[in-house]
Amino acid sequence: MKRLHEKMEQDGRVLSEHVLKVDSFLNHQIDPQLMKEIGEEFARLFEGAGITKIVTLESSGIAPSVMTGLVLGVPVVFARKRQSLTMTDDLLTADVYSFTKETTNRIAVAQSFLSEDDTVLIIDDFLANGQAALGLMDIVKQAGSKIAGIGIVIEKSFQDGRALLEREGVRVESLARIESLHDGKIQFKVEVHQ
Amino acid sequence: MKRLHEKMEQDGRVLSEHVLKVDSFLNHQIDPQLMKEIGEEFARLFEGAGITKIVTLESSGIAPSVMTGLVLGVPVVFARKRQSLTMTDDLLTADVYSFTKETTNRIAVAQSFLSEDDTVLIIDDFLANGQAALGLMDIVKQAGSKIAGIGIVIEKSFQDGRALLEREGVRVESLARIESLHDGKIQFKVEVHQ
Repeated sequence: MKRLHEKMEQDGRVLSEHVLKVDSFLNHQIDPQLMKEIGEEFARLFEGAGITKIVTLESSGIAPSVMTGLVLGVPVVFARKRQSLTMTDDLLTADVYSFTKETTNRIAVAQSFLSEDDTVLIIDDFLANGQAALGLMDIVKQAGSKIAGIGIVIEKSFQDGRALLEREGVRVESLARIESLHDGKIQFKVEVHQ
Repeated sequence: MKRLHEKMEQDGRVLSEHVLKVDSFLNHQIDPQLMKEIGEEFARLFEGAGITKIVTLESSGIAPSVMTGLVLGVPVVFARKRQSLTMTDDLLTADVYSFTKETTNRIAVAQSFLSEDDTVLIIDDFLANGQAALGLMDIVKQAGSKIAGIGIVIEKSFQDGRALLEREGVRVESLARIESLHDGKIQFKVEVHQ
């Protein structure tokens, strides 16, 4: 997605060969207009897939998901990283290991918001090791819902997340794919969806 | 806001005299179309206030804020409840006490996203004791930004949050004001903005 690539080049900051900081438009400060365009692009890519619900993870997945949900006309459910006091319902949970933080987080979705009749689009801001996406897939499967695919805003293609997800037989669409972050520069992978 | 009132009556669940659960359209599952209308309403209320930035708190403040930011054409910054690994910048922080959880949480915004030139609209999903809003105000003041006002989706008018905020001289606009939650029913306060 051209606008996203441009934004990443202009405002992203390469902190190391593994870390691209995009907190000026995606992770901490959010560019609503860009989110709208991202939502339109995900909606276009998954048009006709019969999606009835979007599932994402708090917090950075919420903005692109809500914009996608607006275009597709479907609700968004965000998995919580910590159980809130009023989450008294039956929960579907999965444990997600973070390689960067070296911790395991339990993520949770109330059972009542997913059913066997749902066809789910999973959306997340980043795909690196794929652990968060696998956790979301796990939850969606527990609910008996179908998974139409996974929409990723930024994929670090030099990590093994995509391979792990594709091994599960799921369709993965990433709006930007990073081949490498050598010498402080973003090298994009050749894009199919531009 | 009429549509919000209707949604609360239809899908909100009164768990006690103090707790209204709205996780089917605001706090866990999100209704994107309703968020769009909420964004339009906040934008209408604060039109002409010269807003340059919206500040909110993860996670439930993000969806209404991004929709408001889209209409006003300004970025959204969400304060984080836990510091992320890549938040290496100078941080503005405030401590927020939660009466329900009886814990204090430090919330943080990177200094680089707020300046003396900014006029900020603070948005949050709920106003109860006002502690989160006061924490956000504290952060915005530390940055030297002006505060145009506070936009609240649902106010529990039987708690003292609004009084605390108004004592600070700040404009508070709530799209729904709950007078009471007696007998499992939502009693709304008389609305100015319907």
